[in-house]
Amino acid sequence: MDTQPKPHVVIVGGGFAGLWATRALAGAPLRISLVDRCNHHLFQPLLYQVATAGLSAPDIAAPLRHILRGQRNVTVLLDEVTGIDRSERTLRLREGGGLGYDYLLVASGATHAYFGHDEWTPHAPGLKTLDDAFGIRRRLLLAFERAEAESDPARRAALLTFVIVGAGPTGVELAGTLAEIARHTLNREFRHIDPRAARVILAEAGPRVLSSFPESLSKAARRQLERLGVEVHTGGAIERIDADHVQLAGQRIATRSVVWAAGVAASPLGALLGAPLDRAGRVQVEPDLGLPGDPRVFVAGDLAAISQDGRPVPGVAPAAKQMGRYVARAIRARIAGRKARPFRYRDFGNLATIGRRAAVVDLRGLRFSGVLAWWFWLAAHVFFLIGFRNRLVVLINWAWSYWTYQRNARIIVEPRPSSAVSRRRAEKPEEAATG
Amino acid sequence: MDTQPKPHVVIVGGGFAGLWATRALAGAPLRISLVDRCNHHLFQPLLYQVATAGLSAPDIAAPLRHILRGQRNVTVLLDEVTGIDRSERTLRLREGGGLGYDYLLVASGATHAYFGHDEWTPHAPGLKTLDDAFGIRRRLLLAFERAEAESDPARRAALLTFVIVGAGPTGVELAGTLAEIARHTLNREFRHIDPRAARVILAEAGPRVLSSFPESLSKAARRQLERLGVEVHTGGAIERIDADHVQLAGQRIATRSVVWAAGVAASPLGALLGAPLDRAGRVQVEPDLGLPGDPRVFVAGDLAAISQDGRPVPGVAPAAKQMGRYVARAIRARIAGRKARPFRYRDFGNLATIGRRAAVVDLRGLRFSGVLAWWFWLAAHVFFLIGFRNRLVVLINWAWSYWTYQRNARIIVEPRPSSAVSRRRAEKPEEAATG
Repeated sequence: MDTQPKPHVVIVGGGFAGLWATRALAGAPLRISLVDRCNHHLFQPLLYQVATAGLSAPDIAAPLRHILRGQRNVTVLLDEVTGIDRSERTLRLREGGGLGYDYLLVASGATHAYFGHDEWTPHAPGLKTLDDAFGIRRRLLLAFERAEAESDPARRAALLTFVIVGAGPTGVELAGTLAEIARHTLNREFRHIDPRAARVILAEAGPRVLSSFPESLSKAARRQLERLGVEVHTGGAIERIDADHVQLAGQRIATRSVVWAAGVAASPLGALLGAPLDRAGRVQVEPDLGLPGDPRVFVAGDLAAISQDGRPVPGVAPAAKQMGRYVARAIRARIAGRKARPFRYRDFGNLATIGRRAAVVDLRGLRFSGVLAWWFWLAAHVFFLIGFRNRLVVLINWAWSYWTYQRNARIIVEPRPSSAVSRRRAEKPEEAATG
Repeated sequence: MDTQPKPHVVIVGGGFAGLWATRALAGAPLRISLVDRCNHHLFQPLLYQVATAGLSAPDIAAPLRHILRGQRNVTVLLDEVTGIDRSERTLRLREGGGLGYDYLLVASGATHAYFGHDEWTPHAPGLKTLDDAFGIRRRLLLAFERAEAESDPARRAALLTFVIVGAGPTGVELAGTLAEIARHTLNREFRHIDPRAARVILAEAGPRVLSSFPESLSKAARRQLERLGVEVHTGGAIERIDADHVQLAGQRIATRSVVWAAGVAASPLGALLGAPLDRAGRVQVEPDLGLPGDPRVFVAGDLAAISQDGRPVPGVAPAAKQMGRYVARAIRARIAGRKARPFRYRDFGNLATIGRRAAVVDLRGLRFSGVLAWWFWLAAHVFFLIGFRNRLVVLINWAWSYWTYQRNARIIVEPRPSSAVSRRRAEKPEEAATG
C-alpha cells in the first residue's frame, strides 16, 4: 500500500479559493502543487486602501511560500498556466513546461471587463492587482500635483475632477475615500489649489448604489456618500471615455482621472478548460463544483458560476473560501471512492464601507449603517487579515489615519529604473498608457 | 518697506541638504520654492532595508508637501531642472517652464557610477532611489524562485550566488542582510533548494571593508560578516560584469544577481552650473558653500566638494543636514548684507550595521562593535527617522523581524499594468533591462 504514488493535486491560483483549498488539504496523503503568477496571496477586500495610499502592499499581501511553509505536502510554483489538456491530464506552464495532475482545481479568479469597450482601458484603469493599485495611486496623487502647477482654470478643474465608474463595494469605497483625501488629508498642503474643491463623481448605470444590498441600505449608503461630498449619479450609463473627458448620460465631464470599478470578467483560464461558460466567461460547474463530465477537474471562486435557490452565488471572498474548503473535501471524497454532498453557500451577511465612520451592514436581516456599521466593518476586516503582524500594523495605520486624517503611503514611485528623462515620462501614466 | 517683494529662494532637491535648508528658513521673510522630481523625502540610510524586503516604502519616505505643510513660505514643485542660466538667474523646468530666483541652492545629490563601465548598468543595478530598491528586491526574490524551478545544478548554483560590489556601508549592509535572509528567513519555504546553500560574495577593490572607519573596526566588521556567512574578497577589482558572470581578480564567478554599491557620481546638475567640478563631478565650492564668484548660488550635500583640515567632508546624511542648515544661515546673512562665517563640519561619529546583532560604531575615539553597536545603531536610526508614525511602525517591523526572522515586504509587484504576457516579461528584470 505504501509504495503507491501519492495522487498529485494541482491548484491554480493563490487567492481565497485556491489558498483555502490548499490549507484544507494539509496532512492529506497527497502531493499538491500551487501555481500562481504572483508570489503572494492578496487580501483583495482592502486593495482599495493601497490605491488610496492608506496602506502599503505588505500590509495586505503575504508570500504564498511563507503562508504555506509549514505544510509539507505543498510545492509553490511561481508560474503561469498557458494551456490545459484534460485528455492528457496536463497543464502547460510558461516557465516550467508540462505539469501532470490527478486532480485539478482552477481558481484563477476574475479581472475587469469594459463591456466591449476595450479602448477605455488606458483611460480608466481597473483595480484587481497590487500593480493596478499602485498605478491608480500614482494617477490620483499626480492629478493633484498637476493641478497645483496648472494656471488655466478649466484644465485645473478637469485635473481636480475624479470619476469612479460603478457603485459596487469597490466603487463606493474608492469614491468615499477619495472625497475624504481631498477634503481632509491634502488640506493645507498645496499653495495654489484648494483640494477641497475637487469633485468626486460616482457613476452607476443601475438604479442604485450597492445593488447587492437591500434597498434601505442603498439609500443609507447614498446619503453617507453625499455627506462626504461625493456626487452620485445613478441610472445613467457611461457612453464614452477618452484621455480628458467622460460622457455620462449625455453630459460631457472634463476629467483626467477615471477609475473603472464596474465590470468583472472571469479569468481566461476558464476558456482553456473547454467547458461551457456563462456570459461573463465563468465556468458552469456541477453542484459539487466539478466540471461536467470530468471528475478530475474542479473550479472555485470568482471563476465558478453556480446558482443556489435560484440565485447566483456572489463573487465575494467568503464564497471563494467556502468553495475552496469544499473542493478539498470533494477531492478527499473522490480519492476515497465516495461522492461529496453538493456545495452549499452559507451567506453570513454583507458589509461595505463608504468612508470615515460610514458603512452599511446586512447580517441576514439585521441591517444597520453609519458609525456602528463602520466599527463592525473595521473589526471584521482586521480579524480576517492573514497573519498576526499584518493585523497589528494595519490597526496602527488605521488608528493613525483616523486621528490625524493622514495617509502614510502617499509615495509616488517611478515604475522603471532608468534615466531621469524616461523617469519623468513614466510619471505621466495617461501618456505612457496611450503612447 | 513692506511693499518690497520678498526675495525668492529656490532649493533644488528634497534630500537631507535641501529639506534641512528649507526648514531652517521657516518664518523668514522669503518665498521659497522647493523643486524635486520625486514627491517624497527619502531616508536613504535605510533604503537597503527596502531592497531586502525588511521595510516598505512608506516606512522610510514621506511626501515633501506633507512634511512642509505648516511652513507657509514654501511652495513644493514636483518638477525636474533641465537648465540653469546664472546670468538671467533663471532655472528651466521640464513641466513648469522658467523659474527665476534671487538665491539658489542646488542640492541634487549623487547617483551611482560605474567607473567608465556603463555597460554594466543593466546587470549590476545600484541603490539610490525607491525604484532602485524595488528593482533589487524583485531581482533577489526572483533568483530564489528561479533556482527552485531550475533542474540544472550549475544554473541553480549561479542563481543562488549573489555578488555585492563595494564594501562601503551600503555594500556591507546588503551583504549581511542577504546572508541572513538566505540562512534564516527563507529557511523551510522551498522544496527543491536549500536557501542556506546560497553564496553571498562581497567584493571590494580596496584593501579592507568600511574604509572610512578605523582599521580595527574594519577588521571587526569583516569578522562579523564572515560569521554571518558572507565571503569577503578585498584587494581585487571587478574586471567584467555580464548577464551571467562576474570576473573578479581573474576569477570567473557564475551569478545572476549583482548589486552595485561601489561608485558614486555627483548629480548632472553640477555640470549645468558651469562651475569647476572635481573628478566625481562635484562642485568645488567656497568655504561658505557658495559658487566661486556668484554670491547668489550655493551647493550643499553630496553634490558639494569641500575639504576641512585637509580631508574631504564625507557624503553622509549628517554632513548634508549641517550644510543645508548652514546655507539657510548664509542666505539670511547675505540678505542682511552680512557674510556668514565659513562652514564647519562637526563629525559626531560614524555607524554602520552589518546584520543581525552586528554593527560597528566610531564615536570620535570611542569604538565598539557587535551586539552593543547594533543596538546603538538601531536606536540612532529610529530616532532620526522623520515623523513619529514612521518610527513606531519601523520599530514594530524591526522587533517582529528580530524575533521571528521574518521580513514582511517580500512582495514581488509587477511594474506595469498590462496583459498577463507582458507582466511575465516584466518579472524577468535581467531580460527587461537588456532587451
